[in-house]
Amino acid sequence: MLFDEMIAEDAKVMKSSLIRQLTGLVNRPDVISFATGSPNAEMFPYEQLAEIFNHLIAVEKGRLFQYSVTRGNAELIEAVCERNACVHGIEAAAVETILVSGSQQGLDFVARVLLDPGDAVFVELPNYIGATASFENFRARMVGIRKTSAGMDLDDLRTKIRQVRLEGSPPKLIYVIPNFQNPSGHTWDVQTRKGLIEVAREENLLIFEDNAYGEVYFSGDDPDILKPIKSYDGAENALYMSTFSKVLAPGLRVAWIVGPKEIIRRIELAKETGDLCTSTVGQKLILEYLKRDWLDAHLAGVRAFYEMKCVLMQAALERHMSGLAKWNRPQGGLFLWAELLEQIDTLPLLRQAVEEEKVAFIPGQPFFVDGSGANTLRLSFSNVSDDNIELGLEKISRLMARAAR
Amino acid sequence: MLFDEMIAEDAKVMKSSLIRQLTGLVNRPDVISFATGSPNAEMFPYEQLAEIFNHLIAVEKGRLFQYSVTRGNAELIEAVCERNACVHGIEAAAVETILVSGSQQGLDFVARVLLDPGDAVFVELPNYIGATASFENFRARMVGIRKTSAGMDLDDLRTKIRQVRLEGSPPKLIYVIPNFQNPSGHTWDVQTRKGLIEVAREENLLIFEDNAYGEVYFSGDDPDILKPIKSYDGAENALYMSTFSKVLAPGLRVAWIVGPKEIIRRIELAKETGDLCTSTVGQKLILEYLKRDWLDAHLAGVRAFYEMKCVLMQAALERHMSGLAKWNRPQGGLFLWAELLEQIDTLPLLRQAVEEEKVAFIPGQPFFVDGSGANTLRLSFSNVSDDNIELGLEKISRLMARAAR
Repeated sequence: MLFDEMIAEDAKVMKSSLIRQLTGLVNRPDVISFATGSPNAEMFPYEQLAEIFNHLIAVEKGRLFQYSVTRGNAELIEAVCERNACVHGIEAAAVETILVSGSQQGLDFVARVLLDPGDAVFVELPNYIGATASFENFRARMVGIRKTSAGMDLDDLRTKIRQVRLEGSPPKLIYVIPNFQNPSGHTWDVQTRKGLIEVAREENLLIFEDNAYGEVYFSGDDPDILKPIKSYDGAENALYMSTFSKVLAPGLRVAWIVGPKEIIRRIELAKETGDLCTSTVGQKLILEYLKRDWLDAHLAGVRAFYEMKCVLMQAALERHMSGLAKWNRPQGGLFLWAELLEQIDTLPLLRQAVEEEKVAFIPGQPFFVDGSGANTLRLSFSNVSDDNIELGLEKISRLMARAAR
Repeated sequence: MLFDEMIAEDAKVMKSSLIRQLTGLVNRPDVISFATGSPNAEMFPYEQLAEIFNHLIAVEKGRLFQYSVTRGNAELIEAVCERNACVHGIEAAAVETILVSGSQQGLDFVARVLLDPGDAVFVELPNYIGATASFENFRARMVGIRKTSAGMDLDDLRTKIRQVRLEGSPPKLIYVIPNFQNPSGHTWDVQTRKGLIEVAREENLLIFEDNAYGEVYFSGDDPDILKPIKSYDGAENALYMSTFSKVLAPGLRVAWIVGPKEIIRRIELAKETGDLCTSTVGQKLILEYLKRDWLDAHLAGVRAFYEMKCVLMQAALERHMSGLAKWNRPQGGLFLWAELLEQIDTLPLLRQAVEEEKVAFIPGQPFFVDGSGANTLRLSFSNVSDDNIELGLEKISRLMARAAR
């Protein structure tokens, strides 16, 4: 039997992201890696989680390991709704909320529930690659929107929506990460958030707001500017997603989506056949963590940790990269974005970086759905030791200087 | 915005299974329920899992909560391959094996990777409803195949394959649960297993064998007759799936699929956007459980527990249901199947059972993709106390007797 001939047409378009293909290259133990985008495992509160696990075993016994309901543990949904309201200003009921097995599953289900082949999805330039892959797997037409220093360029968005409509592709969804975006580390201003709601309403599009990093903010700014788009008046057309992966532990696989109950109900149906239920252990560990009110104290430590890394990055960039690149100063998250001053393609440069300098980053181009961004790169400071931040950026700068010659 | 209008065409066909809709009805605390199909939580080795968890925390610290690779923990895949070979006679390499977040995710990914709209999928009558739902969500044409006491009726299968081909639906997949099937509790004989391989080869179809219950066998029979289809010569066209949910703990969400590497690779791609990775905690708990070689001793207790329940069921059925129904004597698993001697529809009977007799079962008809089976029911003995087995079957028999009048 020729197995490749048995594959469904829709499955033939699936491909591994370029970044996934680079994993083997960038994860060598002798390489200083600014490529790994995972949160730092030292920041997972494993001792607290162990204490909770032992408590749950005593109370729940075998029930800790039973199936859960598809929508998610009802108490955890209530706790998420409460936190959404108190911390983020999002007023949504349990019927408008669903737990999923991590944000990637949320992306997949939203794509599955909303996207017909050819539907246009508008994304930032650059865009989170896991989102691009999910939308493309449902044969959406990806449309990249330029960025200003304030966030998505809403003029470009309006132009592209109309253009796409003229070309016969139904505009459906605008996917955005307004806080400390992966990959760029950029944050939107308040006016752009409100402006997006206007555009979506006028053009009858849904917004899909991903706030994976919103709780990992640094000191100095008023956290009010980070308020999600979903918290503003008129955001009924917005889906909102966030996760415990960056603030607590990704290996528990728990995220949540808030949105119109008609859409959330469809996501629940997708999850019924998609994986039946999210890990019961993960859900109950997180529920008890929230009940004990431990999250905010823990988050203070998480924020300080990443902020210190980011400060070290800034200082080392100043020392080594001035005159070679420009970069941003993220207000939170795990990522920083650099653009080389000369038109050098960072993709072929990566192999050289790993082989000659034992240092790794993620080339920027794969994050751009329009194929631009060849002279950009993503630098994550999450998993690099303080000493290696200095050493690694020195190595990258040496490489850049050689390439610029 | 009219949110229902935003739903994708493919998502509009999704619906909750009838059995899911009955959940509220059958899960009332005052009702004796033969409906719940979950394994019994008393059978999850929570004390051993707690011991392992504390060990892993000491050794791995925060890394226990980090992301995993999409294909699954490499050591756990090796351990699964070894158990497949030693216990089940399935020789498959790691490259032919993938871990998924529970069997339901496996069903979803196999459907996604293999099924084009209109492709014919052949299933048993009755069939596992979670599989039917997954295949239907990808717009497959479901074709029910009759059963003999030896398993699937292969003559009926051949006839239906040809018929479907003539009607223009490409035959693609045969989905089967040869051991202690959910819902029927039936087990196939060896000859039928080998015969299915022949039919699939001759007709160029894939087999998808689900062995969720295969390790939960009772005493008396030679376990060799339970050897999976995948273990026999010529089964290259077979996908095989099994899970830790029935033997260890469903709340950990770990199952696995074995099959041709070309198809497994596509499932990995589906998982990359589907949920990125399975729960790290779940995978590492199971890996350490296998490393300590605790599974077989634990399984002996699991088998004895369900066998005792099944023996009590048989005795109570003899006492109360003779002359009203016929039923089978499962050699393993959690389910027993009954057929009323009179043509009484068990679906409307369920509401009466719950309201008048405070007892619940699952009506058989939803398990039949051809709409037959109205006078059948599934009885699970997993979560009913010994006393309630007697009491509950007495109640059902009273109800049946009234309905038969």
